Amino acid sequence: MSSTAGQVIRCKAAVAWEAGKPLVMEEVEVAPPQAMEVRLKILFTSLCHTDVYFWEAKGQTPLFPRIFGHEAGGIVESVGEGVTDLKPGDHVLPVFTGECKECRHCKSEESNMCDLLRINTDRGVMLNDGKSRFSIRGQPIYHFVGTSTFSEYTVVHVGCLAKINPAAPLDKVCILSCGVSTGLGASLNVAKPKKGSSVAIFGLGAVGLAAAEGARIAGASRIIGVDLNSNRFNEAKKFGVTEFVNPKDYKKPVQEVIAEMTNGGVDRSVECTGSINAMISAFECVHDGWGVAVLVGVPNKDDSFKTHPVSFLNEKTLKGTFFGNYKPRSDLPSVVEMYMNKELELEKFITHEVPFSEINKAFDYMLSGASLRCIIRMEA
Amino acid sequence: MSSTAGQVIRCKAAVAWEAGKPLVMEEVEVAPPQAMEVRLKILFTSLCHTDVYFWEAKGQTPLFPRIFGHEAGGIVESVGEGVTDLKPGDHVLPVFTGECKECRHCKSEESNMCDLLRINTDRGVMLNDGKSRFSIRGQPIYHFVGTSTFSEYTVVHVGCLAKINPAAPLDKVCILSCGVSTGLGASLNVAKPKKGSSVAIFGLGAVGLAAAEGARIAGASRIIGVDLNSNRFNEAKKFGVTEFVNPKDYKKPVQEVIAEMTNGGVDRSVECTGSINAMISAFECVHDGWGVAVLVGVPNKDDSFKTHPVSFLNEKTLKGTFFGNYKPRSDLPSVVEMYMNKELELEKFITHEVPFSEINKAFDYMLSGASLRCIIRMEA
Repeated sequence: MSSTAGQVIRCKAAVAWEAGKPLVMEEVEVAPPQAMEVRLKILFTSLCHTDVYFWEAKGQTPLFPRIFGHEAGGIVESVGEGVTDLKPGDHVLPVFTGECKECRHCKSEESNMCDLLRINTDRGVMLNDGKSRFSIRGQPIYHFVGTSTFSEYTVVHVGCLAKINPAAPLDKVCILSCGVSTGLGASLNVAKPKKGSSVAIFGLGAVGLAAAEGARIAGASRIIGVDLNSNRFNEAKKFGVTEFVNPKDYKKPVQEVIAEMTNGGVDRSVECTGSINAMISAFECVHDGWGVAVLVGVPNKDDSFKTHPVSFLNEKTLKGTFFGNYKPRSDLPSVVEMYMNKELELEKFITHEVPFSEINKAFDYMLSGASLRCIIRMEA
Repeated sequence: MSSTAGQVIRCKAAVAWEAGKPLVMEEVEVAPPQAMEVRLKILFTSLCHTDVYFWEAKGQTPLFPRIFGHEAGGIVESVGEGVTDLKPGDHVLPVFTGECKECRHCKSEESNMCDLLRINTDRGVMLNDGKSRFSIRGQPIYHFVGTSTFSEYTVVHVGCLAKINPAAPLDKVCILSCGVSTGLGASLNVAKPKKGSSVAIFGLGAVGLAAAEGARIAGASRIIGVDLNSNRFNEAKKFGVTEFVNPKDYKKPVQEVIAEMTNGGVDRSVECTGSINAMISAFECVHDGWGVAVLVGVPNKDDSFKTHPVSFLNEKTLKGTFFGNYKPRSDLPSVVEMYMNKELELEKFITHEVPFSEINKAFDYMLSGASLRCIIRMEA
């Protein structure tokens, strides 16, 4: 038992008091974990678009004050009642969606959309008692997707923690908590390109580049990157992208451009932008007979996916994926091992690094498009 | 060699002289097979909706005079140059789409959409010389989808003929040439329901009932039939349908009705109507996390498939299939064996039988909705 077990911990956290306003470094109180909860010390966290999206709070119900953050690596400080899988000292990755191991989804080989712990961006409290574990002078501070890793200590449901190899460097593998696994899994688990096949990747941000990395690992020989920003191509080559298409450079729809480049269409496509038009293009650019398009990007509420249904009869498949179809607890440890075995490279995703005190810089890097991933070091 | 090899054969054929007008029994001349072609004697044929659709010629380019027919069983009479797989006397099923065994599709495990011999409803001639093998007093009569089985003899590309077990009764297995294999394969090869799972079948015509039969064979425990005609339910029980939903009986969309019946959605759905609304319902009624919807019905030219893309992120899959994903030459022989082994029942699809001279009755039975399949006996 750690000396802090069962006690409230006072520590630093970056609190979002208002939508779109810089985070403020505060001293917060972190309550001990309750039943099926784990308190952990965060060593490294990184910033993902989803944090920025909910911090900007355009279009969703705003929930403030809140502690954001969901890509991170940490060490278990103490565990609540009923937690048997984890003990103090274990290295873990918190994940924004969980795996209870008991519901129909967790018992299905095909799904990772746990009934109990599926992502819930509207809930700012813990499941056990419907309350927050964070407070400042008695005022509760809301959680974010059950992780809230922009704090030196946080409390997470045990079902949202992947126990990983303690030899894995947390300042690298922390980025597997969300975006990189999402893109990687979209290729490896869902699109499943065969050796020597062609894959189009729509959107060359961190998720799209991770999808390209997945296609590269799977042995695809042509990886066509599609992005509205041509500057991204150079960087994308490091992730296996072999060709580049900027839809702005053509008068015809990008799906036609790709079909011409590939004698009728690519074998697989992975859409990582969330733009409805890119989703439609990604579907229509795959080859008939065997083409599979995988949607990763999160669409807007009012979007409608429209296509001519004859494409389906022509044996094109349209799928989506959530967190790359990885089950957080069961599957993430093996993704960490892929990194340890040097099958998967993570360093190239990490473009910036800041101390925790400068966390707002990570937001600036992301908003300006300068960064893929910025690692935030909790200890100076 | 048969005594007729190399000779023109005069025989009876039911000729469609005009769109929508009764077929006329004529004496036609059937030229010998050219390179890669086979001439066969048809023993039994049956009528499929696709014949009726192109005979009515509403909405497509009309091509008349024409000999329709594409579900049949026959015996090889003679073979053209280069045909090595078949010899006179072989029992075959002609198929409206072919398998050249050399193109990218034929070489792909995933596709059956042969580049050379894929269905072409606009072409009324043979590939080898761009001419018809049928004529009446010198006037060419067009072929239909390369099969034209409403004739005592016909000429077919070798790639459109499945060589089957000669012990198989052709008056039963002839219906495997199109509709039944399409529905059966949609379930067995594409939807692939697991034992104990739930499947919704949209449309309880012959194709839909074959899909139900496929779901039954695969071990699905709940097979929900959806049809606008409640009278079909009783018949459908023979094909494994356990529950019935008529969308007309509900004010809410049928996908919501099905979701309520099944705690969130069925595991698989198969759409066999061609109605765009049924296609959308079939997709939206599958369960998140693992649901797979398979489109079989042929849509109208101007249809647009519309849905909210978040269903894909919730890990629903949308696929289509063409001829049940069966490769005609490679796979149909084993479907015939399923019948021979009594895994698959065909008798229940056959509701009517007429001699060739009364072929127009088969059209009446189909148009009135009275028949599933009507077998046409070529020999009186």
